[in-house]
Amino acid sequence: MKPAFEKKELKKKSENLSDWYTDVILKSELADYAPVKGTMVIRPYGYAIWEKVQEVMNAYMKSAGVGNAYFPLFIPHSLLEKEKEHVAGFSPELAIVTIGGGEKLKDPLVVRPTSETIMYAMYAKWVHSWRDLPVLINQWNNVVRWEKRTYPFIRTSEFLWQEGHTAHETQKEAMDMVLTALDWYRQIYEDYFALPVVFGTKSESEKFAGAKATYAIEALMPDGKALQAATSHNLGQNFSKPFEIKFQNRDGKQDFVWQTSWGLSTRCLGGLFMTHGDDNGLILPSKIAPIQVVIMPIFQKDKDAIFSYCQELKEVLTNGGIRVRVDSREEPSVGRRFNEWEVKGVPLRFEVGQKETGDRSVTVVVRDTGEKVVLKREQMLVETEKMLASMQNRLLETQKEFLKKNTHDVDEYDKFKEIMATSRGYLRAFWCGDPVCEAKIKEETKATTRCLPLEEKEEKGKCILCGKSATHRWLFAQAY
Amino acid sequence: MKPAFEKKELKKKSENLSDWYTDVILKSELADYAPVKGTMVIRPYGYAIWEKVQEVMNAYMKSAGVGNAYFPLFIPHSLLEKEKEHVAGFSPELAIVTIGGGEKLKDPLVVRPTSETIMYAMYAKWVHSWRDLPVLINQWNNVVRWEKRTYPFIRTSEFLWQEGHTAHETQKEAMDMVLTALDWYRQIYEDYFALPVVFGTKSESEKFAGAKATYAIEALMPDGKALQAATSHNLGQNFSKPFEIKFQNRDGKQDFVWQTSWGLSTRCLGGLFMTHGDDNGLILPSKIAPIQVVIMPIFQKDKDAIFSYCQELKEVLTNGGIRVRVDSREEPSVGRRFNEWEVKGVPLRFEVGQKETGDRSVTVVVRDTGEKVVLKREQMLVETEKMLASMQNRLLETQKEFLKKNTHDVDEYDKFKEIMATSRGYLRAFWCGDPVCEAKIKEETKATTRCLPLEEKEEKGKCILCGKSATHRWLFAQAY
Repeated sequence: MKPAFEKKELKKKSENLSDWYTDVILKSELADYAPVKGTMVIRPYGYAIWEKVQEVMNAYMKSAGVGNAYFPLFIPHSLLEKEKEHVAGFSPELAIVTIGGGEKLKDPLVVRPTSETIMYAMYAKWVHSWRDLPVLINQWNNVVRWEKRTYPFIRTSEFLWQEGHTAHETQKEAMDMVLTALDWYRQIYEDYFALPVVFGTKSESEKFAGAKATYAIEALMPDGKALQAATSHNLGQNFSKPFEIKFQNRDGKQDFVWQTSWGLSTRCLGGLFMTHGDDNGLILPSKIAPIQVVIMPIFQKDKDAIFSYCQELKEVLTNGGIRVRVDSREEPSVGRRFNEWEVKGVPLRFEVGQKETGDRSVTVVVRDTGEKVVLKREQMLVETEKMLASMQNRLLETQKEFLKKNTHDVDEYDKFKEIMATSRGYLRAFWCGDPVCEAKIKEETKATTRCLPLEEKEEKGKCILCGKSATHRWLFAQAY
Repeated sequence: MKPAFEKKELKKKSENLSDWYTDVILKSELADYAPVKGTMVIRPYGYAIWEKVQEVMNAYMKSAGVGNAYFPLFIPHSLLEKEKEHVAGFSPELAIVTIGGGEKLKDPLVVRPTSETIMYAMYAKWVHSWRDLPVLINQWNNVVRWEKRTYPFIRTSEFLWQEGHTAHETQKEAMDMVLTALDWYRQIYEDYFALPVVFGTKSESEKFAGAKATYAIEALMPDGKALQAATSHNLGQNFSKPFEIKFQNRDGKQDFVWQTSWGLSTRCLGGLFMTHGDDNGLILPSKIAPIQVVIMPIFQKDKDAIFSYCQELKEVLTNGGIRVRVDSREEPSVGRRFNEWEVKGVPLRFEVGQKETGDRSVTVVVRDTGEKVVLKREQMLVETEKMLASMQNRLLETQKEFLKKNTHDVDEYDKFKEIMATSRGYLRAFWCGDPVCEAKIKEETKATTRCLPLEEKEEKGKCILCGKSATHRWLFAQAY
């Protein structure tokens, strides 16, 4: 029997995604609004998920020989100006330090919006010969891009991310790195976040300022809007030329390095939180959940016996590599605490009362299905592992289904407009490649080209807007 | 036989510590100067050591229930002003953002020099009852303190650190936390850095701006100057009152929380690098070295056999938990590469040529002693573990000896001045507690009170300067 409790009012996901999203982030203590407009505090529960992302990403990077480093926060404006498209792209979003140590600075300093320029100024100093290549460096840091309209995790003036920056002897090697990074991101989303993604190249108007080509992964949110989930850029020699990152190649000749940069930010957590979850709160996929099992002793009598049985369970699970928390608080009420852990999206709740302690069992409640199962103590570890794995899989399958159901081939512009005005989702439509058509579609439907998926084959078709001949179906969606 | 090689000129530690220090940092690729004056780049080899510090510190913090979080970089100036001593202490060192998103800001933003104020504004929102306590939060982040005279790692305008900030029900609990953090720092220095420290309370003039009391650990550098190596502050209710961090206590009454803050920065790496090392380069204690063993195949003939034997050795060591790198580059010359790894301070070098491959042995060269030992393949793992452990211990013992030899009881001011003008080191001297005497001693000898060591007992004595009665010997030294 679930005891009666006073339920903290959580807004309903089924009624309004956006209201629920900000509410659940605050109530689950993932994050909070900070005193400076457009910034937020990532609280320990939210940060623990970011640490898990770091752990996974660090393992991928280590396997490829990418090392972590740290470059300064402040970039001289003159450095930023070296690549023309880059400075033009970032100028409207800059935060600028004009006073340092009580004095007005002669050369104002830009708070990094990204680190290409300051890193490549150093690469030019470090690289002389093909023997110094490849340079494979990543940073975990904070960056600032001034934003007028902000949204927790999804768009904030300051965010945390990793930015990988590599330099190579050949164009091919660089391109391999671009796709390797993209695949790491895909794995994090699909294997850990249970969130299937589409990946492809960006159009000219959507690519990174200064890149030769941008590759992105895109995730579809429950409201049918797309979230640009991570990007990987082929920089070609666009930066190595102005920054003069030259090397003597194997033929003894001077050449410019081929470069890549790629980043995954705390924005990804926003996609994770928004995707899963229901009217009762978050649902965290078990592989990424900081707490996978919460054990709740329910004291009626025999308090000591119940508590020591809970400790036994905790130890068995912990030794089995499962992340466990015992909640033995006496207040608030059990019901309130059930509710708290539901809001926080913990995959499994173990209820342990006098009955369970007596017959050495445990009553398990599964967060996403609400299913209630009684496990015997001897089977507990194995069954828990299975339940965590099947939950991970179930969430992914649900999202795959959602993605499939909300991806449509469209060949008529009226149909395109109608879908964008109602259910949204991904529309696969021919586009001639003209930025004028792209801009007009955006103006009329709010939909942008998200990417040209890598898997798209060449086809014969007509641009959805102008009717001129087109060779590929692009993926269109309204975007966060 | 060591082949002849062209040695890259490294400055000599035995001739000039300061020249050697900056030179070895650049040549070992720990760090480099960045384009903005007073800032630096921490390169992958240096950053890997910081990651090791993070790993150790995270384990300590986790054991005490301290969680990591992230608070914004920008602090409104009005928040900083809430604690008068705090803002007065930090004002001369601030970097200030006055332009954001192309517009002049109405309220300029301070780039955090430390996060007490922005964190405690949030704590006030989160804490209501004793049930919300303790709050145990840490951040790993970057902070900016404008500096005119900078020195790699030791003093830079931007640095990385962890800042722990806790709030408690009682004064006693807070004081326990202050000392627990101090002891974590002592362990990192002594157990990992092989660097013995002294710890104690700071004088009024040396304490953290806004603290009730500051506790510090101090390390003695080879030139006899002290390095403030980490600090832990008892903030009392100095911040909770202006920030109104109030809670209902167990008696149902309103009270202000008791707080602590404590930090360890990348400065600690400077102390580590400066302490060990010799004319041939760095010496990294084995517990903190990113690479503990470098295996060098020395190809004459039978290249494949040598290489596959090296891979076998690597696998055995790696499986034994040892951090290994195989250097199978063909250029530069073997001698140059020996030299490179020496400069980088790798504890053990394994030379593997035709002879070693043939009789399944390995020739080991120990970085700090220069000793050369031949190990049989079967004993290799066990012997390597022993050699790494004994090196760690040897370095610590050497430093303990150094510390002892350079700590003097002094009761005459002439003697005090003489030592400070020559060999320096720590001087244990009575001080009456008057800031006027403290300031005069500093002016005349450049020595400051480093701390009143926690182990110091009350004694009867006379102030080294004014001769008035004093109760404790303080530790004096010139400081970095």
